[in-house]
Amino acid sequence: MTSKFTINAAGRKVPTEVNGKPVIPFQGVGKYHPIGKKAAPPIRSCANYPADGNKLVPDLKTALLKAGIKNGMTISTHHHFRNGDFVANAVFDTAAEIGVKDLMWFPSASFPCHEPIIQHLERGVVHHIEGSMNGPLGDYCSQGKMRGLGVLRSHGGRYQAVQDGEVHIDVAVIAAPTADAFGNANGVAGPSACGLLGFALADAQYADQVIVVTDHLVDFPCLPWQIHGNWVDYVVKMEQIGDPNQIVSGTTEITRSPDRLRIAELAAQFVKEAGILRDGFSFQAGAGGTTLAFAIFLKEMMQEAGIKARFVRGGSNKYLVEMLEQGLTDYILDGQTFDLEGVRSMRENRNHINTSPFTSYNYHGKGNFASMVDVVVLGATEVDLNFNANVVTHSDGRLLHGIGGWQNCLFSKCTILTIPAFRDRIPVIVDEVTTLTGPGELIDVVVTERGIAINPLRQDLVRALENKNLPIRTLIEIKKEIEEICGGQAARPALLEKPVAVAKWVDGTVIDTIWQVPANL
Amino acid sequence: MTSKFTINAAGRKVPTEVNGKPVIPFQGVGKYHPIGKKAAPPIRSCANYPADGNKLVPDLKTALLKAGIKNGMTISTHHHFRNGDFVANAVFDTAAEIGVKDLMWFPSASFPCHEPIIQHLERGVVHHIEGSMNGPLGDYCSQGKMRGLGVLRSHGGRYQAVQDGEVHIDVAVIAAPTADAFGNANGVAGPSACGLLGFALADAQYADQVIVVTDHLVDFPCLPWQIHGNWVDYVVKMEQIGDPNQIVSGTTEITRSPDRLRIAELAAQFVKEAGILRDGFSFQAGAGGTTLAFAIFLKEMMQEAGIKARFVRGGSNKYLVEMLEQGLTDYILDGQTFDLEGVRSMRENRNHINTSPFTSYNYHGKGNFASMVDVVVLGATEVDLNFNANVVTHSDGRLLHGIGGWQNCLFSKCTILTIPAFRDRIPVIVDEVTTLTGPGELIDVVVTERGIAINPLRQDLVRALENKNLPIRTLIEIKKEIEEICGGQAARPALLEKPVAVAKWVDGTVIDTIWQVPANL
Repeated sequence: MTSKFTINAAGRKVPTEVNGKPVIPFQGVGKYHPIGKKAAPPIRSCANYPADGNKLVPDLKTALLKAGIKNGMTISTHHHFRNGDFVANAVFDTAAEIGVKDLMWFPSASFPCHEPIIQHLERGVVHHIEGSMNGPLGDYCSQGKMRGLGVLRSHGGRYQAVQDGEVHIDVAVIAAPTADAFGNANGVAGPSACGLLGFALADAQYADQVIVVTDHLVDFPCLPWQIHGNWVDYVVKMEQIGDPNQIVSGTTEITRSPDRLRIAELAAQFVKEAGILRDGFSFQAGAGGTTLAFAIFLKEMMQEAGIKARFVRGGSNKYLVEMLEQGLTDYILDGQTFDLEGVRSMRENRNHINTSPFTSYNYHGKGNFASMVDVVVLGATEVDLNFNANVVTHSDGRLLHGIGGWQNCLFSKCTILTIPAFRDRIPVIVDEVTTLTGPGELIDVVVTERGIAINPLRQDLVRALENKNLPIRTLIEIKKEIEEICGGQAARPALLEKPVAVAKWVDGTVIDTIWQVPANL
Repeated sequence: MTSKFTINAAGRKVPTEVNGKPVIPFQGVGKYHPIGKKAAPPIRSCANYPADGNKLVPDLKTALLKAGIKNGMTISTHHHFRNGDFVANAVFDTAAEIGVKDLMWFPSASFPCHEPIIQHLERGVVHHIEGSMNGPLGDYCSQGKMRGLGVLRSHGGRYQAVQDGEVHIDVAVIAAPTADAFGNANGVAGPSACGLLGFALADAQYADQVIVVTDHLVDFPCLPWQIHGNWVDYVVKMEQIGDPNQIVSGTTEITRSPDRLRIAELAAQFVKEAGILRDGFSFQAGAGGTTLAFAIFLKEMMQEAGIKARFVRGGSNKYLVEMLEQGLTDYILDGQTFDLEGVRSMRENRNHINTSPFTSYNYHGKGNFASMVDVVVLGATEVDLNFNANVVTHSDGRLLHGIGGWQNCLFSKCTILTIPAFRDRIPVIVDEVTTLTGPGELIDVVVTERGIAINPLRQDLVRALENKNLPIRTLIEIKKEIEEICGGQAARPALLEKPVAVAKWVDGTVIDTIWQVPANL
């Protein structure tokens, strides 16, 4: 479907056009300077909305019809329920019932629970998906079965794309655990409470039509109004919008692997020895077993040293909530709750703060929070000798993960990747990453169970760690050791010449292409 | 300066062009349907903002220069300090020092403390003012001394004008009682706490350049962030941004006049007898001695009847705060704090909610809060027999008041004007209002000390009040009685044929013209 390619500033072959629209190849970190103006939604008038504020319509079908759903439109949903979302499937089942075709689904992320969308892709209801595809949908895309190209964006990149008008959302459907009939909505209360609704912020602000779907309708005013009713066209009540227990799925259990625990501990020791662990500091630990363990090691060090953080960035979980409640941090600045303790804390604690991709991650704003964080600890599937990293594909080329906030977090003052040296005997340090997701110049430290490598660009960190009791090594040394254990380098997958998706950088440029995997994979 | 006029749908003579731009004459309530898209601010990039989030510059002059201030630009400020604002004068003193000319000042309102701006108007630093002009600036404008036309907008109309691109703000200067170096800001904390910053919301969202000026700088994150640092370009610390004691000035003392107390009591009795006073109801009482007294009478009735409001709209004051703290309302939805108890309550009480002209008043949104309020009680300077009312000029034609939220509030389910029958022996019920600010079809009830008149359009209210022990009369009856007392009708002022300002309706159309007063007035 795409015939022209170019080589971008990172040396990656990328298409010049994606889904019929020209795209800009990656030009280097901070090198692309956007021009022009933000997207401008249509001006509305109160004369066309009910004076009593009651925007309730009987069901999702009525709402979609009133919103003017038609062939080829872009429909968005959010993923605060993670693998427990009931609304996106309901939206496309309803669209199928209405008989519309060729929709673009623009989720903030999709999960295994969204596998039923495959039938809508097969039958033509959905044309393609732009958004993280975790699990079966990523696999489906990898096999070249989707009619359009997948477009992977970071959380900040998704906000940027909508804000800048790269993606125009025709109809946004926002699953809201609590809402009033005016459309004010939040995620902290109600039987399906999922925490917050920040991933739906761009959708609410910029979509032509906004539908709030709730299973817990309260009298006006619904407070806090994480989503303003002033952005909302229709409100629908349905029986259950999601299963909040499924928020926990996937990425929110602490590792029990001795190797990964060692990695987590090394990372925490690095933070301490580098002098980052000091009163008023800040950190972010992504979702995933190793980074959760890192947070717990760090917490112990903070308690020992009597150190208090100014803020901790969530994805929140019970461990971060404990830190807040024990006075180890002034605030949690939270972008998504990863468990029900996070939800409870956000509801009850004024210092557990609801943030959004706009405040935290949007690269096309007047600054954002990500670059103000002292240290962030993230995972990766692969890293090369120049610290370039991959977070979306496995070494076999299959697309299985979304970017999440990962790219955005790379702008922290110190970015640490915690990675096992090999997975299933496949080395994780490679000559060339399968998919470039993060430029090495933004990755400061790689921590494996076999040692810690500091990016030579960060001579300040190199100096700070001299003569400390930590296994500082070069990436080359670690790579060689791994290859000796694994019996050689990672085998390069023989991918087809057909692109199935692209990964965008935080500024909307194309940083890499995801290629179709062979049929036998 | 304006030569062409037309007669609008309310029969008022209005210019077809204001300050060099074509304007749309008022077309009737709900009759003008906007087309087109909202204003679109330029896309920015984090690459051009400090990665550590520190946007501090040494002083206001540096900030204005960095913001690129130049001749003819539009500079905005907010009025949450009311008569205690120190920042607007500092801005134009600095602009004068820099040497720029012909600026348009776009305050959310101006007060007597801003009298020094007159010298900047005289010397050419400021070309004209678009915004409410209370006191000396209104008088100056009335005398035809300003080079451009004043443009009076309601709070909602100001948001609408910025949102719709009718007014483009080049540089917004936001006085913030607490801020961090990133620009996150609020009004609830700090030595100059003034409550909230909602009047600066449109400015922060849509201005090209945004400067936050604070006298209380805190470590990131400043919470709550009523203004997002993500909208802010520069932060300036100055010694004192305002005198919060002056918030109370003007409109926030309860009347001691027996006539006005009777008016307030009659209004409260009307609300009770009309069946509006019921569990879960809502009300708004504007600033001003009579409406404050109304709220107190209403409170007593609520206590007697065991009735709890769902929400009360502020401008908040100690009386509303008492109601919240005594459990007489679930929430205060507050647009500005009118005293320091309001400030304290908003800081401490999670149910004292910070709102904005966007949520409450913007007519070009997907609904707003104003039309959902069960009853609102407002003042007026004049009302005619068709219930048309004036709130900006006195009967002598002088422009002395801003519109505030008055026009926006008219959309409530029941709008009551509480007015003394005459002022200084000048009847307040007139044949024709000096300036039409509110169309009579939106004004349901007029309460004077000499009786209550119900708009015949509201037959439901007429029926509800039948056989109740209240002095229901027609406006004609009340008018005749007043004229007998005052010795005739109100003398019509002999205004000049030169317009000095226009009053906009909530949808941006021109509802009336304010004409120059004679030199001897």
